[in-house]
Amino acid sequence: MYLTDKRVAVMGAAGAIGSNMVQDLLATGTANHVVMYDPFAAGLEGAAEEVYHCGFAGARVTFTTSVEEALTGASFIISSGGAPRKDGMTREDLLRGNCEIAKGLGESTKAYCPNVELVIIIFNPADITGLTTLVHSGLAPGRVTTLAALDSTRLQSRLAQHFGVVQDAVTGCATYGGHGEKMAVFGGGIAVNGVALNDLLGGAEVNGKSLTAEEWTSVQNDVRNGGARIIKLRGRSSYQSPAHQSVEMLRGHLNQGGYPWPCGAYFADGEYAGVMMAADVTFTPDGLVGSIPNGSEADLADLKESYIHLCKLRDEVIAAGVLPPRAEWGTLNPHL
Amino acid sequence: MYLTDKRVAVMGAAGAIGSNMVQDLLATGTANHVVMYDPFAAGLEGAAEEVYHCGFAGARVTFTTSVEEALTGASFIISSGGAPRKDGMTREDLLRGNCEIAKGLGESTKAYCPNVELVIIIFNPADITGLTTLVHSGLAPGRVTTLAALDSTRLQSRLAQHFGVVQDAVTGCATYGGHGEKMAVFGGGIAVNGVALNDLLGGAEVNGKSLTAEEWTSVQNDVRNGGARIIKLRGRSSYQSPAHQSVEMLRGHLNQGGYPWPCGAYFADGEYAGVMMAADVTFTPDGLVGSIPNGSEADLADLKESYIHLCKLRDEVIAAGVLPPRAEWGTLNPHL
Repeated sequence: MYLTDKRVAVMGAAGAIGSNMVQDLLATGTANHVVMYDPFAAGLEGAAEEVYHCGFAGARVTFTTSVEEALTGASFIISSGGAPRKDGMTREDLLRGNCEIAKGLGESTKAYCPNVELVIIIFNPADITGLTTLVHSGLAPGRVTTLAALDSTRLQSRLAQHFGVVQDAVTGCATYGGHGEKMAVFGGGIAVNGVALNDLLGGAEVNGKSLTAEEWTSVQNDVRNGGARIIKLRGRSSYQSPAHQSVEMLRGHLNQGGYPWPCGAYFADGEYAGVMMAADVTFTPDGLVGSIPNGSEADLADLKESYIHLCKLRDEVIAAGVLPPRAEWGTLNPHL
Repeated sequence: MYLTDKRVAVMGAAGAIGSNMVQDLLATGTANHVVMYDPFAAGLEGAAEEVYHCGFAGARVTFTTSVEEALTGASFIISSGGAPRKDGMTREDLLRGNCEIAKGLGESTKAYCPNVELVIIIFNPADITGLTTLVHSGLAPGRVTTLAALDSTRLQSRLAQHFGVVQDAVTGCATYGGHGEKMAVFGGGIAVNGVALNDLLGGAEVNGKSLTAEEWTSVQNDVRNGGARIIKLRGRSSYQSPAHQSVEMLRGHLNQGGYPWPCGAYFADGEYAGVMMAADVTFTPDGLVGSIPNGSEADLADLKESYIHLCKLRDEVIAAGVLPPRAEWGTLNPHL
């Protein structure tokens, strides 16, 4: 009835994302054994009560304010447990604060569940918090990943709106590298009703509509601002889509495939070494294996730019002392 | 891949319940064709965008601020679209206001989708808003129902907590009549790990725990206050459990059975005539058929008291002019 009865620890489970995720894990038949963790005791109990009142058959859901209790015996961890940006906080404050939280999660993972199968990080900036968790956890790189799908699903949805087609009719949408402003949109694989993006940009039509270069730029900008637009429209940041997509990532691991979107992957060497970033992945019993997608020269130049931006953020976290210098990562994590 | 591709209209889809419901309809594989309606245009678009960013395969989700557009062609309607109680509003204000909304929904249903298969009402007081919708819709009674499960799932969950057992180990929990304070808890069918409630009250133990009469009264009080407790703990009213359970009700209809909780049913005659209230139901292609459960003399006395309370609320709505006198219902709805 559920894909797994192994234990999933949901960190940040009192929040809108975390509580939605617990519901989604059960509603999709993915996992029935869930431990909800949050430091906010009242909200956590309320979120757990709501899940109990859903009456999911076969559910084994507990809640705790103890990280040790949450992680001991966990086979999977999904964490939305970052702090939101507050008034007066700079971007750097947020980066440092959330990376401190990621460091703590990595250390707790090392202490309480070193044999965890997969850790999915979804608090921002996820590429960097995911990397920080990885370094401190001591886990093999394939065991730690980040939610990276939303730029791609936003691109798919935005193109579907432009052409007035159903969302499924837009295929091959993928953004790589960092999330948000510095994401790299690879146009080469995109098609609408089977018509390649390049042909559309060259004047081909779908549903009586073409796509000018200006419109394509505008679509990409809309995708970059997709998260901000949710805040503007709803008065709060996205929570349903990150929750659902992180459950889908876990399903990808459990099914050993079938997850169609990029995921965060760590590259130990090569041109994109030393960061975690959105890439194509293969699911293996030993964890995710990332690969750099094929793309045009322009696509790859965008990806390189995104990589350089991620290196800069990483180096800020190193300068802040939350990550050691790269040469010392191996002392914390022998896999790196 | 989905139980139905017929169109589901979700009314109040910008809200926490409605937007969660759309996600749950898709995540559970229940329905892929969903029309989201809400008068709050910005929030509605934001909620729809979140659903798009979830990237559900095969989804056909649209949104509209037009009731006509939302209902035309709908096979199913689920409405959480009531107004919440605001500062300074009396209970009577809320009752009248939400029944006005229910009247409008009934009239719109009659105008735009008179062949709808099932209407599920989940805004409070649902027994009365459901009845008001039914009278004004012109639909057969079995086509309109209300969410009534949450008192029962709360009872199940509360007893599981008392005995320290998993929720599934508590069976036969059902509350009938009105929702909340005046609900009737039927103890006769309840068992914990197979041990009947009466035996537990008589001193039998499960997991080393018994249940005194005082504890049982306290459990029932906790259930009556289950919704208020969520507000206290989370700072907001329940939204995940009403959303999920109403999707489960639709699944019960689509599967023609398998939904284990009481549902709102209208009784045309007999001892409980002229109201809609939580009862046992059978799913038929022609809609739900309610039946009065067997119970002890005390259980049935509780149910009678709950019925009398519902009649009083109904009569307030008649006095307010939102429902005609009962003798005239047949002019609005020939099925009554």
